Amino acid sequence: MRGAVLYGPRDVRLDERDGPKIVELTDAIIRLSATCICGSDLWPYRGIEAVQVPAPMGHEYVGIVEEVGSAVRTIEPGQFVIGSFFASDNTCEICRSGYQSACVHREAVGAIGTQAERARIPLADGTLVATPDVPPPDLIPSLLAASDVLGTGWFGAVAAEVGPGKTVAVVGDGAVGLLGVLAAKHLGAERIIAMSRHVPRQKLALEFGATDIVEERGDVGVARVKALTDGLGAHSVIEAVGTQESMMQAIRSTRPGGHVGYVGVSHDVELPGRELFFSHVHVHGGPAPVRRFLPELIDLIWNRVIDPGKVFDLALLLDEVAEGYRAMDERRAIKTLLWP
Amino acid sequence: MRGAVLYGPRDVRLDERDGPKIVELTDAIIRLSATCICGSDLWPYRGIEAVQVPAPMGHEYVGIVEEVGSAVRTIEPGQFVIGSFFASDNTCEICRSGYQSACVHREAVGAIGTQAERARIPLADGTLVATPDVPPPDLIPSLLAASDVLGTGWFGAVAAEVGPGKTVAVVGDGAVGLLGVLAAKHLGAERIIAMSRHVPRQKLALEFGATDIVEERGDVGVARVKALTDGLGAHSVIEAVGTQESMMQAIRSTRPGGHVGYVGVSHDVELPGRELFFSHVHVHGGPAPVRRFLPELIDLIWNRVIDPGKVFDLALLLDEVAEGYRAMDERRAIKTLLWP
Repeated sequence: MRGAVLYGPRDVRLDERDGPKIVELTDAIIRLSATCICGSDLWPYRGIEAVQVPAPMGHEYVGIVEEVGSAVRTIEPGQFVIGSFFASDNTCEICRSGYQSACVHREAVGAIGTQAERARIPLADGTLVATPDVPPPDLIPSLLAASDVLGTGWFGAVAAEVGPGKTVAVVGDGAVGLLGVLAAKHLGAERIIAMSRHVPRQKLALEFGATDIVEERGDVGVARVKALTDGLGAHSVIEAVGTQESMMQAIRSTRPGGHVGYVGVSHDVELPGRELFFSHVHVHGGPAPVRRFLPELIDLIWNRVIDPGKVFDLALLLDEVAEGYRAMDERRAIKTLLWP
Repeated sequence: MRGAVLYGPRDVRLDERDGPKIVELTDAIIRLSATCICGSDLWPYRGIEAVQVPAPMGHEYVGIVEEVGSAVRTIEPGQFVIGSFFASDNTCEICRSGYQSACVHREAVGAIGTQAERARIPLADGTLVATPDVPPPDLIPSLLAASDVLGTGWFGAVAAEVGPGKTVAVVGDGAVGLLGVLAAKHLGAERIIAMSRHVPRQKLALEFGATDIVEERGDVGVARVKALTDGLGAHSVIEAVGTQESMMQAIRSTRPGGHVGYVGVSHDVELPGRELFFSHVHVHGGPAPVRRFLPELIDLIWNRVIDPGKVFDLALLLDEVAEGYRAMDERRAIKTLLWP
């Protein structure tokens, strides 16, 4: 089968790879209906995050179940399913507390690589959620967004304790940040400040529910958020970048007693203890437990309450995966969908 | 009047200082019934935290109101009152959200120095809470504990989301850590692991409700907590030291999705972003908003439900303040009460 493989910095190729096989009795094999490129794929693509190459790429997926292992009980061939980047048993104590991305048996789907025609998904019963039926094609982008970026933005909003009457700031205007705006709107935020200096992203943020745009970054951006909040800072701040600058911008934009929900994968971040201590903010985040939110997100998408698929502003054939990476690397695209 | 003054490392003296006067119309003057030495006083005492000397010392206090400014409405001469280390208006948006120690008008009482016969307390109406009556002498140590260490341990427990059915670990066996144990017990924790290697402190921890003692620190201590919690870590961890080692011990002892409540004043702490991200823990803390808890704590002490005054294992006359500091510095005493 065909699948994307990273060979080195900025060198992604579509290769002929071995087709997936059932390895564990709890596995499922899915045929991808759609897959996509993640902002986090750009870290190894740019050579900033070291990976052993050649590396199969991709961890976002929706598709039709083709085959299941003999221990799989609830997932069946023919179902349309969505899973996320960590496979999880969904039965351990950590899963049951809502942290499936820290499941005691978790497995990284990224190591398998879902930018491909087919993929093996471990722990199928715990990981995959079936839609009510095979979806109409126009719903596929939104369902694919639920696999990671929507679930991650949603977790950022929940971790930031977004709720009715609150002012929310969002640091980062990639797909996750934009869907953090959508989540904040859905969770009842009164005011949503999107921090973005790219006009197309600002437009999408406004469409998703942002009430204010702040173009400035760093201390100037913080001062702008404070000026919009009686000098106090936002109640809730969603951090969706993962750098030192973005984390400090998030912490400093939050009022005492407020909450930072951070979902940008941390790269070379060191939080100064003394400043954090005196900031009085709550800090919570990490790899999103997308599985916690999938049933609700599928329901919202199925009933066309939310349309997170709008973050895909470029759709290509899987054959064009290299161009998909280039477009995101050069910020010509927010997020690239790939049709296998 | 007599008051303690720091002149340099390990040089605290009882000086003749000017008596306090009403400066702002919202001030009160109190005559101290008792005061004490805080673990945080040891940082400047040891010369680790730079302060401009000579520096008046002390920020914990209970006493009788002698005089109030003309704008004071609820506090009256003759009342027995308790306040905490930050004066707060208790009316601003931050105070009303429960973060009085980040009040937009806060003032540090430590700059005034309450290891003295009398003290000026700013923002009296917002800061001071009166007891139902002048207390019997045997209640004074517990009421004094509420001024800081009890309220701080309580905040640590609340920030760590301690509750029924939860396993709590407490890093630090000073007065704050020990009262974190007491708070955890009162808030319904099922299991309380006190991390301490000092026998008298272990005894007090057990008396306050600890169910397990872990003597080891660092990675070995973390492994012991995990062994006691099915390999997962505690639900809630109270950090009451403020060093890099204690913070990492707290974070690593917490299960994914669990909560670290940190109240040890941070000294040279840098939290590694990537480890924090993948730990999935919640982190919250800072200078405790003791004012939030004072009415409840006074009630519990007044009705003899809790006896936090037990942390005072040394009581001296104010004249002996230098010996009080020495005893705590040399760990001969957990906490020293001073009678003016």
